[in-house]
Amino acid sequence: MDITIFIPISGFLALLSAIILFYLVKKEDAGNQKMKELSDSIRKGAMAFLKSEYKILIMFVVIVTLLLFAASFIEGSQMEWGLSVSFIFGALFSAITGNIGMRTATMANSRTAEATKKHLSKGLSIAFSSGAVMGMSVVGLGVLGIYVLYFIFNNTSILFGFGFGASSIALFARVGGGIYTKSADVGADLVGKVEAGIPEDDPRNPAVIADQVGDNVGDVAGMGADLFESYVDSIIATMALAAIAGGFASLENAVMLPLVVAGFGIISSIIGTLLVVFGKGKNLYSALRNSLFLATFLTAVFAGIITWYFIGSLNPFYAILAGLIAGIIIGLSTEYFTSEKNKPSQEIAKSAKTGPATVIIQGMMTGMISTIIPVISVVAAMLIAYYYADFYGVAISAVGMLSILGVSLATDCYGPVADNAQGISEMAGMGKEVRERTEKLDAVGNTTAAMGKGFAIGSAAITSLALIFTYIASANSLLPVGETLNLSLGDPYVVAGVFIGAMLPFVFTAFTLGAVGKAAYCMVEEVRRQFKDLNLLKNDKNKPDYEQCVKISTNRALKEMILPSLMAVVSPIIVGIVLKPEGLGGLLIGSISTGFLLAVFLANAGGAWDNAKKFIESGNLGGKGSEAHKATVIGDTVGDPCKDTSGPALNILIKLMSIVSLVFLPLIIALN
Amino acid sequence: MDITIFIPISGFLALLSAIILFYLVKKEDAGNQKMKELSDSIRKGAMAFLKSEYKILIMFVVIVTLLLFAASFIEGSQMEWGLSVSFIFGALFSAITGNIGMRTATMANSRTAEATKKHLSKGLSIAFSSGAVMGMSVVGLGVLGIYVLYFIFNNTSILFGFGFGASSIALFARVGGGIYTKSADVGADLVGKVEAGIPEDDPRNPAVIADQVGDNVGDVAGMGADLFESYVDSIIATMALAAIAGGFASLENAVMLPLVVAGFGIISSIIGTLLVVFGKGKNLYSALRNSLFLATFLTAVFAGIITWYFIGSLNPFYAILAGLIAGIIIGLSTEYFTSEKNKPSQEIAKSAKTGPATVIIQGMMTGMISTIIPVISVVAAMLIAYYYADFYGVAISAVGMLSILGVSLATDCYGPVADNAQGISEMAGMGKEVRERTEKLDAVGNTTAAMGKGFAIGSAAITSLALIFTYIASANSLLPVGETLNLSLGDPYVVAGVFIGAMLPFVFTAFTLGAVGKAAYCMVEEVRRQFKDLNLLKNDKNKPDYEQCVKISTNRALKEMILPSLMAVVSPIIVGIVLKPEGLGGLLIGSISTGFLLAVFLANAGGAWDNAKKFIESGNLGGKGSEAHKATVIGDTVGDPCKDTSGPALNILIKLMSIVSLVFLPLIIALN
Repeated sequence: MDITIFIPISGFLALLSAIILFYLVKKEDAGNQKMKELSDSIRKGAMAFLKSEYKILIMFVVIVTLLLFAASFIEGSQMEWGLSVSFIFGALFSAITGNIGMRTATMANSRTAEATKKHLSKGLSIAFSSGAVMGMSVVGLGVLGIYVLYFIFNNTSILFGFGFGASSIALFARVGGGIYTKSADVGADLVGKVEAGIPEDDPRNPAVIADQVGDNVGDVAGMGADLFESYVDSIIATMALAAIAGGFASLENAVMLPLVVAGFGIISSIIGTLLVVFGKGKNLYSALRNSLFLATFLTAVFAGIITWYFIGSLNPFYAILAGLIAGIIIGLSTEYFTSEKNKPSQEIAKSAKTGPATVIIQGMMTGMISTIIPVISVVAAMLIAYYYADFYGVAISAVGMLSILGVSLATDCYGPVADNAQGISEMAGMGKEVRERTEKLDAVGNTTAAMGKGFAIGSAAITSLALIFTYIASANSLLPVGETLNLSLGDPYVVAGVFIGAMLPFVFTAFTLGAVGKAAYCMVEEVRRQFKDLNLLKNDKNKPDYEQCVKISTNRALKEMILPSLMAVVSPIIVGIVLKPEGLGGLLIGSISTGFLLAVFLANAGGAWDNAKKFIESGNLGGKGSEAHKATVIGDTVGDPCKDTSGPALNILIKLMSIVSLVFLPLIIALN
Repeated sequence: MDITIFIPISGFLALLSAIILFYLVKKEDAGNQKMKELSDSIRKGAMAFLKSEYKILIMFVVIVTLLLFAASFIEGSQMEWGLSVSFIFGALFSAITGNIGMRTATMANSRTAEATKKHLSKGLSIAFSSGAVMGMSVVGLGVLGIYVLYFIFNNTSILFGFGFGASSIALFARVGGGIYTKSADVGADLVGKVEAGIPEDDPRNPAVIADQVGDNVGDVAGMGADLFESYVDSIIATMALAAIAGGFASLENAVMLPLVVAGFGIISSIIGTLLVVFGKGKNLYSALRNSLFLATFLTAVFAGIITWYFIGSLNPFYAILAGLIAGIIIGLSTEYFTSEKNKPSQEIAKSAKTGPATVIIQGMMTGMISTIIPVISVVAAMLIAYYYADFYGVAISAVGMLSILGVSLATDCYGPVADNAQGISEMAGMGKEVRERTEKLDAVGNTTAAMGKGFAIGSAAITSLALIFTYIASANSLLPVGETLNLSLGDPYVVAGVFIGAMLPFVFTAFTLGAVGKAAYCMVEEVRRQFKDLNLLKNDKNKPDYEQCVKISTNRALKEMILPSLMAVVSPIIVGIVLKPEGLGGLLIGSISTGFLLAVFLANAGGAWDNAKKFIESGNLGGKGSEAHKATVIGDTVGDPCKDTSGPALNILIKLMSIVSLVFLPLIIALN
């Protein structure tokens, strides 16, 4: 039996699961009129953002497609016209998953709140199911897209276009979404909580809907597109390395192995998902974690069997295992460094006794120290994978790490749905008991979000490493016979590339931080204006203009997104032309290493500040309203754009620059 | 005529100038009894720190010397016993310059204050002269030390030991000194200014002398040792590259060229110095800047003539010029990004209207954006230098940048003397007019300090680059014939090294930030205790126990210094053994690029926060005491350890790891 038949089967199974789960969620009760209205507003806001984003995206996709197509006619460029086709598909599939995910999440929020009235585990099941719709769409469309394109073109370098398409959507979703979510959040909090003194999620606050929309835009669409990109990039890199590097008993089997592993990862993820959807456990967190562990275990077993059967050697399996384990270690270490239950975050809370400055310094320290485990994990996984299966091993270890994405993304997307459910229960006045239950759902979501962020960063780093090795292999296959690309650190062009590459994540972070600031400022002005003009706080009959706030977040986020996005796409091409393929190789390694470190630093410092605040809010060190609490609120405000905008955007930066380099490498070589 | 005779002559001229300037300063009036007492206390404190530091240093030097000596007996290690001799000399000479600098600076402070009573330019002259004593000692001993050692051993790789010795002292001076200065500063401010509400430099504050001592420990001894290291490292790297790489008409001339250039740089610096010492200009800042520019111009002219005469080609001269210009650009860009007269710092001040969180975010952005010019300058200088004169060119461009060190270090060391003079005028109650004058001196010192920091970072980066190229060349000369060290980014060991190397500056920064926090905490406790036990605020007759505070700063700083210092020395050796010379090469490039970026980020963010506060204090945006002012005080407190401890310590980290790698390379190759 040809085992590759499992690839399309697993892809369709994933999509089928997504559809079933979607209808399971849909048939649930959406609650009373007020809840439905709120949920509708959020969905409308989310869709309005997507629609505006798509307008820019379509322009971008058309331009790039034309450029790619034109480049294939340049004498000696060796760029295939098929790249433009696979680029369109990559962009399209990523956009579709984002759309499905947002629709499901914004439908599930009120249903989760309503179900929680009956039973906590019912709420968990709905929120998780809606996340799983996203997770299964991503892996299903990812595997099917690559499989079909490879079937048609039978050329792995054409697949780079698919990755590039996915990257482009991820860029806009992560950067635009990240700016959106934080500008709405900060705008709502600064005027509502701080100036007007009304509680979070108070329906009188005009920015409250934009804030809820932001959770979906950033954590559902943004996270989904980010991981869709990592997922397809890692598979594509492995296939390309197998084809270019050769040295296998059956080249075709080596090329197909990552897809087969991904396919069995889907089956394992579906089984893991069922555990939560139909489980009735009381401990929410362990339910989620057990499903992740079960999927990991099953994937490992399957991968071992398949690799042996398919390649005739267990070597690639060890690489897969290294990736799987590294991913879990990075996730757990992120949880350790950011959870309020552990020392790092509590130390930040304690440092609040001497004011906000020490909170900031302690948080920076925590973020910096927290880079050790992720870096060592990625380095160890890379060296082990290389030892057993060369560069192919490094790439397939990334596939291993990402093979359980179906269920791990479900866990990530569960977070914003639970958050929204809590917001709706608050705004719709569903009473204390329901609110307390949704708070529990939300708290678990915060923990899983931390793990998910660590996992996203780690997978971005190892995927980028796979891409850079693919870059070297591709260059060697493109160069005239006898010439090789030697990315030697003894070459000043390479060193110049490393320095410039190391600089870009810093500059990119400055841009994204600045973008949040500017967008938030506009939101603050608008909320202040509405409070004053509509007299919202004193006259209950006046309704705030939610849509206007949604519009401002949308427009500003998309406007502020342009500059950093262009930087990410254009700089590798310019450096490649000026500093040759050597300098570009240096740029990639410089930006991947520094980008990875900065991303971990920003995410973990931000997470730890957030939870230091929560630690005090739960009654420690003087509790809410104390001076210490105020100091941690400042820390949290600093951390917010770090962890939700700039940090995640760096994941995209490093992958996007790598895939852009791969796509345009033939052209760069021709121009040099 | 043998032009190399100018080398020892210029060295002796530098020392002679230092001696003359020392006595010119000494003959000035040290002021009244009270001022003399204060100056004495500061000097005693500074010497007490040096003495305690030397105890640890001697142990360290003895251990390393024995290890180096022992290593020369290891079969096949190719390490020469001479390394241990030159190591001792490097450490000794650096320690001597630090001692001279501290003695002069702590003698000049009261004299500067007294002279300012008569005329402002007289104060400038004394403070600058004391700085020039340090500057001239550094360049004189640097050039003479290298010249004599090369004369004796006639082997450039033995000179690496001299650089290693200089690095070791620099490590302790920068890290220990940085922790000292900030723990004293923060301790004095937190309890004195914030809790007790007494002004800065109030003599009732028990930590006030420790704070003054700290300025000398950090900015005189620390900065001096840092630049002594860069200075000798860049010369040594150039000599080694000339000897190893070859390809010159006269190899001996190529080896001696950096020393000759340095010698003429000394002459130029002496001329530049005279301009300030005997000048009577009213504009303090332009007096300092003009002397720098004059020295730069003269050095450039001399370098052109010598290179032509000595090498028969202008190519190395272009490299020197690239380095000189890059150094000045980096200095000016640092000034732009941190001065309160410019937009970046004012934008931070404006963001204070929305509270401390936005101050922090805006400062982080400023620091990140400010990396662009330094990185591009260093990269451009490297590429130009390489284009004209290969790796030798890169190394000699670092020599070019540092050739004006005699005068630029004088400008740096002027700062803490002016700062101390202001402190003394305040504590001794010298009246409003004198205080205003010393404030002016101090303000200029802050500007030059910013430029000096940028210059120190930039020179550390380019010196490290020269060292890494020397590392590659040395490895190739040490490896068996036919083998070469290929630091290819296609080698996972190299990539692993890059990742670990990029991580180390983050971890090192976390350690040094943490060290300041712990040491400052001890100081806060002690000051609080004295205020309470001795009833200092209400009873004027009780005298604070200054010495106890000095002791605490000293002991804590030296204790907290151990861990990060060990990390810097040991990690390259471990990585070299585990990941081979390839991994170590990767580690160096990773740590140099990321360390450079982090150093610029920390220094400029810190400087900009500091001056945003000063901008408000000079009456803008509500002035002193406003909410905006409080927000910028928080920013300044965060920035203090960033710019004065962690940032400068990174300069040492990157150079030290490079020189350690060079020294132990023969051993690492033998063990692999």
